[in-house]
Amino acid sequence: MNNLSLAIHGGAGTILKSSMTAEKEIAYKNALENALNAGYQLLENGASSIDAVQRAVSELENSPLFNAGKGSVFNSEGTHEMDASIMDGQTLNAGAVSAIAGIKNPIQLARFVMDKSDHVFLLGKGAEDFAREVGCEFQSKEYFYDEFRYQQWLEIKGTGKFQLDHSKTKEQKFGTVGAVALDQMGNIAAATSTGGMTNKKYGRVGDSPIIGAGNYANNETCAVSCTGSGEFFIRGVVAFDVSCLMEYKGLCLKAACHEVIQKRLLKIGGDGGLIAIDKVGNVALEFNTEGMYRGKRTNQGVNEVSIYKD
Amino acid sequence: MNNLSLAIHGGAGTILKSSMTAEKEIAYKNALENALNAGYQLLENGASSIDAVQRAVSELENSPLFNAGKGSVFNSEGTHEMDASIMDGQTLNAGAVSAIAGIKNPIQLARFVMDKSDHVFLLGKGAEDFAREVGCEFQSKEYFYDEFRYQQWLEIKGTGKFQLDHSKTKEQKFGTVGAVALDQMGNIAAATSTGGMTNKKYGRVGDSPIIGAGNYANNETCAVSCTGSGEFFIRGVVAFDVSCLMEYKGLCLKAACHEVIQKRLLKIGGDGGLIAIDKVGNVALEFNTEGMYRGKRTNQGVNEVSIYKD
Repeated sequence: MNNLSLAIHGGAGTILKSSMTAEKEIAYKNALENALNAGYQLLENGASSIDAVQRAVSELENSPLFNAGKGSVFNSEGTHEMDASIMDGQTLNAGAVSAIAGIKNPIQLARFVMDKSDHVFLLGKGAEDFAREVGCEFQSKEYFYDEFRYQQWLEIKGTGKFQLDHSKTKEQKFGTVGAVALDQMGNIAAATSTGGMTNKKYGRVGDSPIIGAGNYANNETCAVSCTGSGEFFIRGVVAFDVSCLMEYKGLCLKAACHEVIQKRLLKIGGDGGLIAIDKVGNVALEFNTEGMYRGKRTNQGVNEVSIYKD
Repeated sequence: MNNLSLAIHGGAGTILKSSMTAEKEIAYKNALENALNAGYQLLENGASSIDAVQRAVSELENSPLFNAGKGSVFNSEGTHEMDASIMDGQTLNAGAVSAIAGIKNPIQLARFVMDKSDHVFLLGKGAEDFAREVGCEFQSKEYFYDEFRYQQWLEIKGTGKFQLDHSKTKEQKFGTVGAVALDQMGNIAAATSTGGMTNKKYGRVGDSPIIGAGNYANNETCAVSCTGSGEFFIRGVVAFDVSCLMEYKGLCLKAACHEVIQKRLLKIGGDGGLIAIDKVGNVALEFNTEGMYRGKRTNQGVNEVSIYKD
């Protein structure tokens, strides 16, 4: 039997132990463990990696602690715009959505785009029309409302400022969730979902729905899900860069992730992190920020969630 | 002095000599020459490569012969949705827009996103709001109306079908325009613009506005603009793949373009082409279709436009 392996993240950034309560820390860790368990159980039952990453990301979307699905931040108009993408390393099939509202699990819609449309990337009202046709679950504004997110927005509403989940002056966290997995068949997959930036305007899109930037999977190399300052991840084509360093330069997973996050991304001024997996189940959790909500579980006995730098 | 070099394309696909009139061929070649002249004149006057590619693409957008700007195809709602992106190889700065309407030159808006915003990628109404704030030129529906495009749309309106500029049963052409350039300072840049697919719905986005997929520029390697079946170009991260083959595997520009278009893209079922340039002014015009509207001009005496396979 092949190795089984699953890794998840719930965003990276300036996550300091000093600004965290014990209660909050436990809540985050529990939410990460829930997502890890849900996805890993599928893998153990013989499910595909694509199903496992979708499931793990759905759990993270359903938690108000993370900026994706329920818990998404407010944009400049006081509503939510969400992005997500998913990629299958066996077929190189992919699906992505951007600027969607009202859909309970954006990652499910990205999966439907991959499986049930001739397209890869749908956005806005058109993507929502497609969601209705394929039977995606919609939720009310009340479902997406979160008091903490609303207060975050009220603080900077009308200032023209925007922030990546948490303010720079306080805790800075890039709010994105993601998962990568290896299944029994030896196939890998990646999924990423985000609620964007608080008070964002102009229909800004980050790296999360961009195949190659925030998300990528290829059985020949690796599956990658990113979180960070999206503009830099787009310019660096970060997720695919990890894959190319492995395929063309022969780097191992860990070396490729280190090179991209600690050198190439920093060189252009970007911060954040990524989770990655290869076809034998090696996992890399790489970030150049103070912390990254993350977890990994394998059939080699690894089972851990962490928040801060080691 | 460094070499000067400019290449452009106006889309690739099943462009057969048998389905082309002499008059039409002359019109296409004149339009390509106009764009080449406009961009190259800037380079000769010492302008930057980013200004030159923007200018060349603007000329192609202004021609109704190409599916970008004026001459954009109709979507399923009988309106126009355009995409564009631009990237500067010196700084790795980039700007992109998607699903915008009414803006005369989408490539100008992509440039404004790069120069005047904190973002890389803006879409829809938000991008149009930004366009108004920075003073982008808007045009009426009448400006964008083209009888030929309208008839194309009427043929398949309401059928649920969509087509890449021209129908598969007739002439199949992937309607996108693009330019790559090398300037006197030794900097390279790339720009790409499209009107999308006739009768497209669901807010479909192709590769043109995706940095790494349809457009990429990096002084260390190459500048690339793509045209083709966008979904496959996204999944293949085509433009950045050319760059990585050069940087990590040591391939020259021509070999890298050949590898990506004739092997890697075909392997996943994608067709189309690209234009690319490197920092010493080598130009590659690679496609796996019957033809590609294209042209190149250098200070080494090259000055040509062509349509079919050699």
